[in-house]
Amino acid sequence: MAQFKRIAVIGAGLIGGSIVLAAARRGLAGSLACWSRSESSRSTLRSFNVAEVFDSAAECVKGADLVVVTTPVDTAEATFLAIAPFLAPGAVVTDAGSVKVAIQLAARRLPSLNPFIGAHPMAGGEKAGAAHASANLFENRVCFITPSGQDDPRALALVRIFWKELGSTLTETAAAQHDEIVAAISHLPHAAAAALILAVMDQPGFRLEAAGQGLRDATRIAAGEENLWVGILLANARHTAEGLRAVEHRAAQLRQAIEGQDATTLRRLLAEARIARQALDLNS
Amino acid sequence: MAQFKRIAVIGAGLIGGSIVLAAARRGLAGSLACWSRSESSRSTLRSFNVAEVFDSAAECVKGADLVVVTTPVDTAEATFLAIAPFLAPGAVVTDAGSVKVAIQLAARRLPSLNPFIGAHPMAGGEKAGAAHASANLFENRVCFITPSGQDDPRALALVRIFWKELGSTLTETAAAQHDEIVAAISHLPHAAAAALILAVMDQPGFRLEAAGQGLRDATRIAAGEENLWVGILLANARHTAEGLRAVEHRAAQLRQAIEGQDATTLRRLLAEARIARQALDLNS
Repeated sequence: MAQFKRIAVIGAGLIGGSIVLAAARRGLAGSLACWSRSESSRSTLRSFNVAEVFDSAAECVKGADLVVVTTPVDTAEATFLAIAPFLAPGAVVTDAGSVKVAIQLAARRLPSLNPFIGAHPMAGGEKAGAAHASANLFENRVCFITPSGQDDPRALALVRIFWKELGSTLTETAAAQHDEIVAAISHLPHAAAAALILAVMDQPGFRLEAAGQGLRDATRIAAGEENLWVGILLANARHTAEGLRAVEHRAAQLRQAIEGQDATTLRRLLAEARIARQALDLNS
Repeated sequence: MAQFKRIAVIGAGLIGGSIVLAAARRGLAGSLACWSRSESSRSTLRSFNVAEVFDSAAECVKGADLVVVTTPVDTAEATFLAIAPFLAPGAVVTDAGSVKVAIQLAARRLPSLNPFIGAHPMAGGEKAGAAHASANLFENRVCFITPSGQDDPRALALVRIFWKELGSTLTETAAAQHDEIVAAISHLPHAAAAALILAVMDQPGFRLEAAGQGLRDATRIAAGEENLWVGILLANARHTAEGLRAVEHRAAQLRQAIEGQDATTLRRLLAEARIARQALDLNS
């Protein structure tokens, strides 16, 4: 049974396109609408043949009872301003941004009649764009919901239903806590993978043709689209910068143990790293 | 047709066990012998049922015309000393160590009648021990051969045949050049992945249950056995320390751009990283 009358997805790239596909497959809404800034994404979205595709965000949100904003993090405020005058009274707004404090602040731009509940599905990848969208993208993936503590209970219930119906496993936490968690498990790893591939290219011994799976895996996430990641890292600057400082410190510790031929310290650090890494697999 | 009368593998864990399996499958020798320090590896090797398994390295090398040393890098010299008195005159010695200058120096401990040609198959993984051995481990993987420039031509030809017959793609380079290359593509990524997982664990926001594939991939190689890696990193100390210094520098650049909300610099660094990482895939 359709839980929503009409769902509008604003900024349908990888995440938004996957929402459209997943919502269609699960019959989550009477009708689906979506908008993308890019003509090529709109063309891809049209080819899915499951949603009305708009070339204006304002037109797209009209008549929707749930609006999902999936534009890049640094354009969230502009998006909220653009759609605000056209939202149906009572329409609930959620998003999929990788940071939550900044977006919760930006959502103050929405009319008071339109409750906002932030969300962050931990899905995606280094390939951007609706062309890589998949109806399964959210299945069994963690989706953070970040209630403010003063939310409209009906809006919160609807947003929970929406993300759960897409297949996600919900985790509810305050926006500030969310940003600290994803800094550690996502934003820091992204920045560190970028630092590593840049450092590898700096080495006189680097030979592209000799690179193996280890280097590929260690740096895979650094292939992510920089225009998305600039916004994410700057919007979560404090935690990400702290994390990078820790990478600098740990790299220096390892380097000093190596320079000093200090096998005992080096063994201890590598053993700690191995045990920490193995714990990730035990939990998967 | 068997290319060798008898091949002895000294220190048969993941790499040595895989050599035994691959050599047996390809009928590379009239007979196979192997030794491991560990009783559990010996028991695994016996279960393969393709090689005579010894509990003494000295006994193992007797009568072999090719001896492959696959003990950890930091025990190479002790291994050469232990087998030296028992090598058949003219028996050729090769190895599979991840560093080559240090092992070439250690190989001076071998009798002058026993030519040594260093090698390094770029195969393996974070799972150590003969129990993870596979006859396919070397297939289509790069194997470095590091001639000294003054090698016995017969020995060099035999070592080339041996590694090629296991399925490897041979790359010949001087030992010093080899060590610089693998520092960039293997030793530095390993140390950096260790630094990253340690830094992630340092973050107050870290939640094991929220960790996703990005963090898992970025740190996978850090699950490697520290007792192997201490020897490798210390034996290739200069290049690995230089690489870690570059990681520290690049992480600091990213951090400073983030702290300064400098979107232009951050976008440039992330774009360089993306392009560099995408080049790895184009080449794979």
